[in-house]
Amino acid sequence: MEGSSLGAAVVFLPREEDGRCLMLENVLFDPAALWLAETLRRAGVERFLVACHRDDRERARPCFPEDTVFVATGEGNAQEELNTFLSAPGRVIVVTEPVFLLAGAAQRLRQGETRGEGRCGVVELSENCRQAVLEGQDFLTALREGAIRYPEELAMPVTRESLQTELPAAAKAQSVRRLQKRGVRFVDPQNVYVGPQVQVGAGAVILPGAILRGETCVGARCEIGPNTLLRDVTVGEDSVVNASQCSGCVIGAGTTVGPYAYIRPDTQVGDRVRVGDFVELKNSVIGDETKISHLAYLGDCDVGEGCDIGCGTVTVNYDGVKKFRTRIGGGAFIGCNTNLVAPVSVGQGAYVAAGSTITRDVPSQSLAIARAQQTVKNQWVAKKRQTKQEKK
Amino acid sequence: MEGSSLGAAVVFLPREEDGRCLMLENVLFDPAALWLAETLRRAGVERFLVACHRDDRERARPCFPEDTVFVATGEGNAQEELNTFLSAPGRVIVVTEPVFLLAGAAQRLRQGETRGEGRCGVVELSENCRQAVLEGQDFLTALREGAIRYPEELAMPVTRESLQTELPAAAKAQSVRRLQKRGVRFVDPQNVYVGPQVQVGAGAVILPGAILRGETCVGARCEIGPNTLLRDVTVGEDSVVNASQCSGCVIGAGTTVGPYAYIRPDTQVGDRVRVGDFVELKNSVIGDETKISHLAYLGDCDVGEGCDIGCGTVTVNYDGVKKFRTRIGGGAFIGCNTNLVAPVSVGQGAYVAAGSTITRDVPSQSLAIARAQQTVKNQWVAKKRQTKQEKK
Amino acid sequence: MEGSSLGAAVVFLPREEDGRCLMLENVLFDPAALWLAETLRRAGVERFLVACHRDDRERARPCFPEDTVFVATGEGNAQEELNTFLSAPGRVIVVTEPVFLLAGAAQRLRQGETRGEGRCGVVELSENCRQAVLEGQDFLTALREGAIRYPEELAMPVTRESLQTELPAAAKAQSVRRLQKRGVRFVDPQNVYVGPQVQVGAGAVILPGAILRGETCVGARCEIGPNTLLRDVTVGEDSVVNASQCSGCVIGAGTTVGPYAYIRPDTQVGDRVRVGDFVELKNSVIGDETKISHLAYLGDCDVGEGCDIGCGTVTVNYDGVKKFRTRIGGGAFIGCNTNLVAPVSVGQGAYVAAGSTITRDVPSQSLAIARAQQTVKNQWVAKKRQTKQEKK
Repeated sequence: MEGSSLGAAVVFLPREEDGRCLMLENVLFDPAALWLAETLRRAGVERFLVACHRDDRERARPCFPEDTVFVATGEGNAQEELNTFLSAPGRVIVVTEPVFLLAGAAQRLRQGETRGEGRCGVVELSENCRQAVLEGQDFLTALREGAIRYPEELAMPVTRESLQTELPAAAKAQSVRRLQKRGVRFVDPQNVYVGPQVQVGAGAVILPGAILRGETCVGARCEIGPNTLLRDVTVGEDSVVNASQCSGCVIGAGTTVGPYAYIRPDTQVGDRVRVGDFVELKNSVIGDETKISHLAYLGDCDVGEGCDIGCGTVTVNYDGVKKFRTRIGGGAFIGCNTNLVAPVSVGQGAYVAAGSTITRDVPSQSLAIARAQQTVKNQWVAKKRQTKQEKK
Repeated sequence: MEGSSLGAAVVFLPREEDGRCLMLENVLFDPAALWLAETLRRAGVERFLVACHRDDRERARPCFPEDTVFVATGEGNAQEELNTFLSAPGRVIVVTEPVFLLAGAAQRLRQGETRGEGRCGVVELSENCRQAVLEGQDFLTALREGAIRYPEELAMPVTRESLQTELPAAAKAQSVRRLQKRGVRFVDPQNVYVGPQVQVGAGAVILPGAILRGETCVGARCEIGPNTLLRDVTVGEDSVVNASQCSGCVIGAGTTVGPYAYIRPDTQVGDRVRVGDFVELKNSVIGDETKISHLAYLGDCDVGEGCDIGCGTVTVNYDGVKKFRTRIGGGAFIGCNTNLVAPVSVGQGAYVAAGSTITRDVPSQSLAIARAQQTVKNQWVAKKRQTKQEKK
Repeated sequence: MEGSSLGAAVVFLPREEDGRCLMLENVLFDPAALWLAETLRRAGVERFLVACHRDDRERARPCFPEDTVFVATGEGNAQEELNTFLSAPGRVIVVTEPVFLLAGAAQRLRQGETRGEGRCGVVELSENCRQAVLEGQDFLTALREGAIRYPEELAMPVTRESLQTELPAAAKAQSVRRLQKRGVRFVDPQNVYVGPQVQVGAGAVILPGAILRGETCVGARCEIGPNTLLRDVTVGEDSVVNASQCSGCVIGAGTTVGPYAYIRPDTQVGDRVRVGDFVELKNSVIGDETKISHLAYLGDCDVGEGCDIGCGTVTVNYDGVKKFRTRIGGGAFIGCNTNLVAPVSVGQGAYVAAGSTITRDVPSQSLAIARAQQTVKNQWVAKKRQTKQEKK
């Protein structure tokens, strides 16, 4: 099989004596099995067969591609599944032990050049092995007798001890090296947490304390951090996310977020938007070039383009029983400390005066105001002070 | 004394030539003396005699148990106190130098098995030593002649240099190892700061940048962090504290806090409560299952169970002269951007309309509203624009 | 020149083959050239001659003092400029390679005592060298033949690799050691980011995750952090900045900021001020002893001394077209959730009632109120519930 491309992997997720499956324990924020699968995918693996305890399958499944073949160790049709899996052409990697593939492993596996004599828990099926298995020999026996070995420096064993000590640092280093190769700059490579599925574009700068989790994808030339948590977030190019937490949302290009913003799931933020400090967004759509500069909560809200949402604006989306949507037309201006009591619409280009509680729709190009008259009691403070002193 | 349990410790807190007592300098957030005392307590030490300069006693006292005997080095009744202290049975550890006991030291001291020949500043009184002292020999001379030594790897010297370089890392590692043994998981063991008195339950996960200080106690299966500061805080089981600062408060079970919440002293938060983003609590009691989801300040406030506190709610607890309390009955609903001008009560199940400033008590099951009518000036924006253009 | 003081430096900022100038790449938050220049200044260098590609000059200029002589490599009057530069007396350091000077280098260069045989990219001009150059010999040839070498441990090469791996840690260590010598304490020396121009006074404590950038100057006995970003900020003595971001501003003495405050450029905060949680300041002046405790935005605002700015206060500084200023006199009390619609003034000692939107000036010592009457609908909630049930 030398020279042919790496196409498949057989992965064992064994249980410890106490029934614990170490490959399903988290390294940083993801199971060791996911780190493994992602590295193997980058090495070129497209087809996976995973052998694990029947009760571990549910937790293992999301770590591998959807079309992965799962066989229950020691159960019925495992041999049959294996034979079908191995009968396709292409190189096959076999991971027999709980291992964490270190920085650079993907490339070495892809090239297949650095095979060694070590015992790192990762081997490659030789043609003899494959034939032996297809002819009925026990898989592990065949491996022991004729597999191609990889050197020890390729991987680190996943153990109770290493999970608590060396693996977090190894995982940090693996992700950092992977993205540095793509032109990402890390201000401090030792103080970032990047998951195995995360993508970051060239020219992006990741600041200390950034945590990039799940299926996060950050565009080119973004600046992320410090102390920013992105989980399952897509960020467009040239955006800045500073000291904020975002999850399950899409952030456009040229947009700035934070410091101290909180963007929750099902939110779509447009391009060149400003989501400032102490702003929460939830289940909302924010149009391009809109500014939500500070101290605001927009939930269940559709905001048009080029709006200005004043400080202290709150969408009153919940009446204690149900949640309702708020709609704000393009170019609208919402004054400070305003309540928008949903369901309610503010029309295009409309203007809501500061301090208003808006309960009825505002037509486009109109002004809505709900405000008490200002009255002044002259010298009230001075008189009050005098009265107090007289009482004494 | 071999085989008998470790019962007492004699600790010297010497001064440097310039009068500085290195054991009273901070390692992370606590004096080296506190780290020492806590490790000795975990090793089984119940009685302490501390010898320090008379002027250091006040700062040293909070590092040791309340019934600790303090003797002033070189003063009057020191020998008498020492004799009384040593006449009780049980093993006695003596710490003669400024030292930091490393990870694993508590267990080794408890077992007394790994005595060695090193000079690490920690020795154990032999029976001969004890007799010699009780018969009048100088304590330090007796130690020099016949103490049982502990190996060097037990402790690290506390020096001006080590305080600035190695000790912070050693302290981080000591606390992490101590809690990992109890089933706590650290996402990144190198990026957490846990004090010597902190307790954390099994199954809890501590995220990067967490700082756990003082007498903090975190329940089982909690998730703390990232970048969370807890100081003298008790957290119930299964709670989450995300990117927040809390001090001097009690947080219930199944409660979520943050991101970006600030809970100040004398606050008691119930079970299954939501304290969301940009929320400050101070000197307040929050009933079970109440939600304070975002952008609110509750100070000097008693909130019942199952309340919903709207975004932008503020307890106006200060009139410029005095502070007053606010009371919110169970099941009450406080609309957004509401002021509750204390002293004021909102009854059980009452409803306060968004945008209201409440100055008088609201009866239970009633609606309170203080809001100006909304008026709309149609096409006001368009007309204004036109007027402006005409002026040009 | 032995014995004479170090007075000048000739620095080459060469380009890589691909045209990239590594010395202009960032180490932490600043170009390697700035780190170099600052270390040389601390070593006593007062005059700089920098040789770089003509197109790199603009980016290089801010890294060096204003009177630095720039020569374009390989262009016209370089030799003449060099001769003029070298004809002044005093020791001359020459940096020929892209290097990062490590902790302790400034002192060693100043003393000139530890000259060695290594090749670290840093040499010192000997008297022979200088004469040869002044007599017309090529500068680099003269250096090769007769320069005084410095040992390798003085500096680390700046390479594509080191920029991504070792240099961030080296830079962190350099700044920490520099400030530790001045009596600054770092809770965790490995988790702080301090730029080369930053000054911190004795007795200050820097907590984990602090980022001090640009021309930041922190006073004695301050406490900065955790997770605080200061950029071009001056902080007075005895102040606390906790979990906040500040840039381009001045913060007085004895002032506390945060957690979660955001102070933007052109802001001047007085002494003994409280800038609390979820507070943003922008382009404002805050008088001594004023309290802005929580959830507020003051922009384009002049606040006197001893004011109390209530929770939820917002300066409405923007009407959609222009920005206006707000003025608050000394001793004024601004109630919670108040809008101050600029341009507007609140007089000295005046009192604004909570929940007011203030559009006209408030005279001093007077009370301003703009608030709807509170009405209560008794048993409204109960009746509503009943109606709903009857409908079912």
